[in-house]
Amino acid sequence: MDEKKIKKNEGPCSLIEILKVIGGKWSISIIYVLISGTKRFSEIERSIPNINTRMLAKELKNLADHEIVIRKVYATVPPTVEYNLTTKGKKLEPVINEIYKWGLEYVY
Amino acid sequence: MDEKKIKKNEGPCSLIEILKVIGGKWSISIIYVLISGTKRFSEIERSIPNINTRMLAKELKNLADHEIVIRKVYATVPPTVEYNLTTKGKKLEPVINEIYKWGLEYVY
Repeated sequence: MDEKKIKKNEGPCSLIEILKVIGGKWSISIIYVLISGTKRFSEIERSIPNINTRMLAKELKNLADHEIVIRKVYATVPPTVEYNLTTKGKKLEPVINEIYKWGLEYVY
Repeated sequence: MDEKKIKKNEGPCSLIEILKVIGGKWSISIIYVLISGTKRFSEIERSIPNINTRMLAKELKNLADHEIVIRKVYATVPPTVEYNLTTKGKKLEPVINEIYKWGLEYVY
């Protein structure tokens, strides 16, 4: 394990702080969908089974507030709204890959 | 990125299935606490700020149902109950380390 392995005495407090940012029920799935590039709200909604519009809007706002997602509005008629990962958001890809690797071995 | 990287066409469905197993609000924190070894219910509860007994019991049950955590009851008076990670649970350490690495860079 490399030097950034969790030091035992740091306890879960810091982990809980981190999970407040990315631990939302749908956050990881939304970040996963955006890894492949810019998407509109409806594209994200269609990509995630069982999520509803209110939940998606709420989670996107949380992710934008934490600068993981960036929301761009274009002055078309009607306005076009696009979402994309920030650099900070793209750096979550290793987390998603580790979750996925574990899932391939133990969930499927 | 290695061969188990998420293949774009697999979509978030599989990720959502995986997150049903480990995506509970407190799951990652509980798994983190158990990485350092066997713990009693009260020890886990004390290690995780803001979790209450009902939530901890519910999450531990979910993790035990998914064979991530093992629950052992010893016939002492009163009975002693201990929790430990299964092999499957211990294999989540890389997920937690990636979350933590990201957090050190972007949350702290």
